[in-house]
Amino acid sequence: MTARKPTMADVARHAGVSLKTVSRVVNQEPHVRASLQRRVQAAISALGYRRNEAAARLARGASMLTLGLVMENISNEFYARLAAAVEAAAAEHEALVVFGSYEESPDKERMLIESMAARGVDSLIVVPSAADHAWLAEHASLRLVFVDRVPRGLAAADVVMLDDERGGRDATGHLLAGGHRRIALISDDDGLSSVHDRATGYRAALAAAGLPVDDGLVVRGVFDPGLVAREVTRLLGLADPPTAFFATNNRAAIGILQALRERAARPERAAYAGPADVGPAYVGFDDFALADVFSPGVTVVRYDVSALARSAVELLLRPQEGARRVRVPVELVPRGSGELPPPLSP
Amino acid sequence: MTARKPTMADVARHAGVSLKTVSRVVNQEPHVRASLQRRVQAAISALGYRRNEAAARLARGASMLTLGLVMENISNEFYARLAAAVEAAAAEHEALVVFGSYEESPDKERMLIESMAARGVDSLIVVPSAADHAWLAEHASLRLVFVDRVPRGLAAADVVMLDDERGGRDATGHLLAGGHRRIALISDDDGLSSVHDRATGYRAALAAAGLPVDDGLVVRGVFDPGLVAREVTRLLGLADPPTAFFATNNRAAIGILQALRERAARPERAAYAGPADVGPAYVGFDDFALADVFSPGVTVVRYDVSALARSAVELLLRPQEGARRVRVPVELVPRGSGELPPPLSP
Repeated sequence: MTARKPTMADVARHAGVSLKTVSRVVNQEPHVRASLQRRVQAAISALGYRRNEAAARLARGASMLTLGLVMENISNEFYARLAAAVEAAAAEHEALVVFGSYEESPDKERMLIESMAARGVDSLIVVPSAADHAWLAEHASLRLVFVDRVPRGLAAADVVMLDDERGGRDATGHLLAGGHRRIALISDDDGLSSVHDRATGYRAALAAAGLPVDDGLVVRGVFDPGLVAREVTRLLGLADPPTAFFATNNRAAIGILQALRERAARPERAAYAGPADVGPAYVGFDDFALADVFSPGVTVVRYDVSALARSAVELLLRPQEGARRVRVPVELVPRGSGELPPPLSP
Repeated sequence: MTARKPTMADVARHAGVSLKTVSRVVNQEPHVRASLQRRVQAAISALGYRRNEAAARLARGASMLTLGLVMENISNEFYARLAAAVEAAAAEHEALVVFGSYEESPDKERMLIESMAARGVDSLIVVPSAADHAWLAEHASLRLVFVDRVPRGLAAADVVMLDDERGGRDATGHLLAGGHRRIALISDDDGLSSVHDRATGYRAALAAAGLPVDDGLVVRGVFDPGLVAREVTRLLGLADPPTAFFATNNRAAIGILQALRERAARPERAAYAGPADVGPAYVGFDDFALADVFSPGVTVVRYDVSALARSAVELLLRPQEGARRVRVPVELVPRGSGELPPPLSP
């Protein structure tokens, strides 16, 4: 923090005046009292504040001071963490963040982007829906950076993504290394590039182990934890059930937790306590706050949400022609659920 | 949804034009192509859209179209849910939401409010810190509604709160009804009116049962789940430990979960499995997404976050002199953790 460049906010705090006053002095607006001007100038000297960057942004238009963040649903933990990280990254550039959640509606996604644009918010970070985004080509004046997913129909988009395929491969490889052979995939809409790439990693890991993909163990397009729980229960009731699961996002991991909890609560299970009762194993994608409070803890593929957010804000601030792609690395965090062994063969 | 009044966004969707175009037609701005004007007018007629309310807001200043939301930390589930609910309530009035998290810093809280004001966001919903807010009296042009807590030092503030004292009383009464006599209170900074009122409810319930408050069982000012876990472990190690806990917010409930998990993992506990091993019981304040996925489920005091948000937005839109207070009701949701019995006396 000490190496950080002083901001207008620092100057305001040091001078004991409002940010607006600093802004007015820095921008040489009229009607600022001479005594306030002196205080602000003294604070600028004391802190070594340099106007350059902020001034350049102001010259490009004041709207740079507000970034838009458009995503599925801020009440989901992934998005809440992303919003907090975008806010922090934006604050380093003295920008505020206006957010909007489109839930599952591409129509609402478009309305949000257009509402923001109509109100002068021309720099946007978007976690795109699976719908076609070609309509954005009309909005040439918008600066856009996409996060987590490649938008369909926009060839020249800047995108900050996770190393999704690697994550899927590592998660599945981890379960294979633990002795599992029947590993189910529980995935969201694979029209989303992130989900698609995680599933590709799952298949690559099976192939590397010389195992075919059993389509009966692949569940696609389940968005809601309740639906996931139903599918997991169905799979566990198969004659030849999976012994492990790879969940491509946090909602899917939570659905698995729900299903296993319901299963443990059933009286016929409680009566039985053989070694087969320890499983199934599972690995999720996306960390969540309570993942290590469950017993066993939830093994996940994790990444630095701040790195996602910072990269996105940096791309926004350095507009440039062409389709830039940034990949943020992922890592597997073993906590217990992914290390449960398969049941002994009967 | 069918009884909802049509919005500009509905008109835009129906006409297949951007929101900006609708706004330009509605506000009779020049340079709108005649064909677009006709499409918009046709959509306005078809939907029965009435300009009145939006026009009145526009006349008061376009800034009404963006609400500010200032809170502790959007990555905490309570705030993420609140943000989603404020966004939904604001959208009903065609307003976007710009948010800011001040974490634990009253300085940052002030900077955020001043930054928003400096950028023309003059209608703010604030979850205030425990610091004095008298400085806000200087900002007479801001419209402010406080949520969850009464700000210190501002006599005329509008506040939307929960029925906190009732929640504290019900939670503690529930544990008393289950036979508990040694009930610990785990609370955040009681300079926050919400925390203070929940603790008042705890004491009232004990008094109603003819029990004194044992100060040795009262923990104040613990903010972080890790610190809560340490305090819970310390209390459980007392010669005469509590048999139950009341946690005044979601972070405290999560800290209790952590402590109990660590305790269950210790080998000396695993070896022992008498009836005393079922407890301790606990009740949290604030629901959270995974509360019913734990085993036992987490008993909480719950409320309608949308009601908090809608009330706040309504107060903002009907500015009025005086200190309005709205209380949103709470309810106890038994899920298992609050119904665990006290251990049998030795």
